[in-house]
Amino acid sequence: MVPVQQAIAEIRRGAEEILVESELIEKLETGRPLRIKAGFDPTAPDLHLGHTVLLNKLKQFQDLGHEILFLIGDFTGMIGDPTGKNVTRKPLTEEQVQENAKSYQEQVFKILDPAKTTVVFNSHWMNKMTSADMIRLASNHTVARMLERDDFDKRYKGGQPIAIHEFLYPLIQGYDSVELEADVELGGTDQKFNLLMGRELQKAYGKKQQSVLTMPILEGLDGVQKMSKSLGNYIGISDSPKDIFGKLMSISDDLMWRYIELLSFRSLEDIQQWRDEVATGANPVNIKKTFAEEIVARFHSEQEASEARDGFANQFKKGQIPNDLEEFTFTAGDEGLGIANLLKDAGLTSSTSEAFRMIKAGAVKIDSVKVEDRNLVISKGKQHVFQVGKRKFAKVSTV
Amino acid sequence: MVPVQQAIAEIRRGAEEILVESELIEKLETGRPLRIKAGFDPTAPDLHLGHTVLLNKLKQFQDLGHEILFLIGDFTGMIGDPTGKNVTRKPLTEEQVQENAKSYQEQVFKILDPAKTTVVFNSHWMNKMTSADMIRLASNHTVARMLERDDFDKRYKGGQPIAIHEFLYPLIQGYDSVELEADVELGGTDQKFNLLMGRELQKAYGKKQQSVLTMPILEGLDGVQKMSKSLGNYIGISDSPKDIFGKLMSISDDLMWRYIELLSFRSLEDIQQWRDEVATGANPVNIKKTFAEEIVARFHSEQEASEARDGFANQFKKGQIPNDLEEFTFTAGDEGLGIANLLKDAGLTSSTSEAFRMIKAGAVKIDSVKVEDRNLVISKGKQHVFQVGKRKFAKVSTV
Repeated sequence: MVPVQQAIAEIRRGAEEILVESELIEKLETGRPLRIKAGFDPTAPDLHLGHTVLLNKLKQFQDLGHEILFLIGDFTGMIGDPTGKNVTRKPLTEEQVQENAKSYQEQVFKILDPAKTTVVFNSHWMNKMTSADMIRLASNHTVARMLERDDFDKRYKGGQPIAIHEFLYPLIQGYDSVELEADVELGGTDQKFNLLMGRELQKAYGKKQQSVLTMPILEGLDGVQKMSKSLGNYIGISDSPKDIFGKLMSISDDLMWRYIELLSFRSLEDIQQWRDEVATGANPVNIKKTFAEEIVARFHSEQEASEARDGFANQFKKGQIPNDLEEFTFTAGDEGLGIANLLKDAGLTSSTSEAFRMIKAGAVKIDSVKVEDRNLVISKGKQHVFQVGKRKFAKVSTV
Repeated sequence: MVPVQQAIAEIRRGAEEILVESELIEKLETGRPLRIKAGFDPTAPDLHLGHTVLLNKLKQFQDLGHEILFLIGDFTGMIGDPTGKNVTRKPLTEEQVQENAKSYQEQVFKILDPAKTTVVFNSHWMNKMTSADMIRLASNHTVARMLERDDFDKRYKGGQPIAIHEFLYPLIQGYDSVELEADVELGGTDQKFNLLMGRELQKAYGKKQQSVLTMPILEGLDGVQKMSKSLGNYIGISDSPKDIFGKLMSISDDLMWRYIELLSFRSLEDIQQWRDEVATGANPVNIKKTFAEEIVARFHSEQEASEARDGFANQFKKGQIPNDLEEFTFTAGDEGLGIANLLKDAGLTSSTSEAFRMIKAGAVKIDSVKVEDRNLVISKGKQHVFQVGKRKFAKVSTV
């Protein structure tokens, strides 16, 4: 058994907020395995690193001896969008729900321990709920307080319609905590309102109130918007080792610290040491590589992580040319072809004027030798490797 | 068969609004018996003349050959106040609902024809409704539009809490029209929002839309607030002939026309003739008596109505003193007692100054003789009947 003070310190790490921490400590002090709830959409999952912020925290609770209630909100998923306006939210069949649940498990058990995870479906109790029960449930909250929720508030004030059933969904999500007798519920900071609803409804139904723990929302590769598949700024946990490694290496140094804070399992001491090193002049790229290797290893293997690191290093080692670069053949004729046109036609620059700028900036190389002359002409019958910046290569032949 | 033009003229009488009248005419033109819905509370009924405004209109539809769906909203009655805040709205048992329904029928069949009335309970379909069905139902309306309803609007703006289930009740009421396939729904003007909800939901559920007919709300005896048992300004349909007659005689001449318009079955021509008579100098009291007699006869019999009219006439006939007047004995001593104090102490005036005013106005009589002297002294050992105005009497003895 980990001492409670140590447990709470670990739980606190990376968390945005714990409501109410003193209650959570009391629960931890009982020594019994706590019931830790987290809710997930029943739609086809394709988990990315953003999701793992929460999953990692769940894993931590498991490591501390607690039980995860992995709740799939299939009840509303099987209703779909009852207004029929959102065609992407077609009602799911029971078979689809089961299939998606299976896919969830395949993915989340890369992180969670199946032996300490119970997958539950809220249709189990919601399908039995009568309309009278629903009325009683709805009586536990007021319109005004529901309209305080950020997104409802914005839509209401902005004159965007809110269908009345949308007010029932947070209540259902909260009621799941009543049925599950959850001790703790985890969610993103954007879920705080709904998590507190569970707390409130448990009280109304005469149950012990859950504690609420919110985790930050991870930014995507752009460092601005939240990581999301639809925004394309994501790293999927099923991405190849090379892709995970390469995408992580592409993030800014600032974002790196954020990712390390939320995704790395390294000790807080290790991370502080890294920060100290960078503060005194060390190159953050090495830390980034170590971190990227940790993440690849988590979803693949140590071996593949190491290979990804080597592959990345080779690809961008000074002067070294990748093996699998794209090849082009252009007709040069007797006059030959200007360098700027060649760079553009090989897709290394978007225009000839960009080509001129890159040459001027010293970013263009032919066979690893920097190009100085923007009017350089390549005659026919040649083959060279052209390079723009660190990562763009092409093999160009002239005929 | 009454011609449609005549039928619609009768239907229009006294109605506040018909939405949409052209649609209602189309329905009448089909010649089939229409399904006329009216909803009632499942609480113990104690009907008063205010309720009969609507019941009379239903009766009119019956006389035109249509079927009344007398809907008892027992589903929500059996839920009661789910917040538990309103202790007067305890959940009704099924037995209580049945009992109340029986009491309703005993009362409404004084007006409605049982053969053309179907009593229905919305628990019949609502008890079968699942929570998922309820969500679908709720998806048909928006929060903003619900908050447009007068009472919700006032409460929301006034910071008074509105529990979310209150938004479900108008939807349920509207859904009853879907289940009943109502052609027309009747209600008070205060129900307009809910009646239109039925129209809207029928459309959403692919049904033909009901027409809506609203009836004015009858003012109570005070002529200001709506007639209501709790305000004490009502005439119950189970009141005695004497009480109904007397209360109707007590209303102002203005209010009389309003009552006649909404409660009398006399033809519009008769009523116009009455108005003409009063306009040319006739005393409205005779019209009031004829009208009061009509109402008493409706709930009792012609015979009792006639007796009530005679009793009333005798009681207030000039100089005639009622038999059951209150008796007082005051100690006059040797000085005797002043008339003003006696009037006050016998409860005939609220103060001595009011007593002086009444004497000055010629409204005070002793043994049917007008009192002229405000300083009149009654010596001991006398017994007189004191009278103030037309209706206040007391037998006063001095010792």
